[in-house]
Amino acid sequence: MKVYGDMKSGNCYKIALTAALLDIEHEWVSVDIMNNETTTTEFLQKNPNGKVPLLELDDGRCLSESNAIVNYLARDSALIPEDAFARAKTLEWQFFEQYSHEPYIAVARFIAKYQGMPQARKTEYEAKQPGGHKALGIMEAQLKQSPYLVGDQLSVADVSLYGYTHVADEGGFDLATYPAIQSWLSRIQAEPNYIAMTSGD
Amino acid sequence: MKVYGDMKSGNCYKIALTAALLDIEHEWVSVDIMNNETTTTEFLQKNPNGKVPLLELDDGRCLSESNAIVNYLARDSALIPEDAFARAKTLEWQFFEQYSHEPYIAVARFIAKYQGMPQARKTEYEAKQPGGHKALGIMEAQLKQSPYLVGDQLSVADVSLYGYTHVADEGGFDLATYPAIQSWLSRIQAEPNYIAMTSGD
Repeated sequence: MKVYGDMKSGNCYKIALTAALLDIEHEWVSVDIMNNETTTTEFLQKNPNGKVPLLELDDGRCLSESNAIVNYLARDSALIPEDAFARAKTLEWQFFEQYSHEPYIAVARFIAKYQGMPQARKTEYEAKQPGGHKALGIMEAQLKQSPYLVGDQLSVADVSLYGYTHVADEGGFDLATYPAIQSWLSRIQAEPNYIAMTSGD
Repeated sequence: MKVYGDMKSGNCYKIALTAALLDIEHEWVSVDIMNNETTTTEFLQKNPNGKVPLLELDDGRCLSESNAIVNYLARDSALIPEDAFARAKTLEWQFFEQYSHEPYIAVARFIAKYQGMPQARKTEYEAKQPGGHKALGIMEAQLKQSPYLVGDQLSVADVSLYGYTHVADEGGFDLATYPAIQSWLSRIQAEPNYIAMTSGD
């Protein structure tokens, strides 16, 4: 099993973290987003959408979309709640992440950290701030009520939201006013098999 | 069980269609997006993200995010593949929908059809066109290979992608050059319990 990824990307890191937490053996194939390595003809045959992360099984079948990969790797593990409604809530948080969190926090981080805040994207960067804070506010409210996003147990929802939340400051989002998020980050970092974002590449 | 929704929204229609296909009894509560009814204090207590659709169980628990609701309603039905990898592929398509399809096609449609193409959003509308066509091209390539997005059976992936694809023309996306998508739309419309987008409200 191969994972094509770029550890600069929180979406790719989610996969590395899931595999670490569950002790899943895999080969990590580095793909450089900044060097357009996701849009080569060879890569587009594996994922026509031209994005990492990408999971390739030993028989060649491929799976894209970070949260789909996280859930596939975590199937039958304690990261997927047994209760049907709790399972639905983990998906709710993962879709929230892709629509209401990542497009603000990850994109602002990319502009600031990897593009060096070019003048042409400054307005866009600033426009991302209210949406990112709205997302963080929704997480904070939940994490005041429960130690993890879905109840008392670490789940795929936490792994998926952790990806970009723990580096939100790199997108200009100061987490100082989100104490419940900070405690939650610490709880995840204390997991026995936890790996940091830079160590998987 | 109540579903809060606005039938102008493809995201809400997905829920109405899933419930119809599976013959699931529910009360439809109309919420007018254009009248800001998703941002009232009362509604924000049900969904802090201020969006429809929203599912409310009889005991008061709430679930948001259209694709999470679709999958919850369809649990244990034939719309969810039994095979783990096929199930992962349905999620892949649903996350693709929320990140690479809906933000282009649904937003262009909203600007053109419901906002009447205001001058201030004309540039944004035009900027949505390439992304929408990229998404349609990816669907077309898959649907040339299989009758449904994940193999030979109708699944939640089809329901989720059908929502905005079948009204893509309202966002300026001519489907004439996507024959495989057109055949797929017809197959879904031929489902015994199919309901059209306007009939659920």
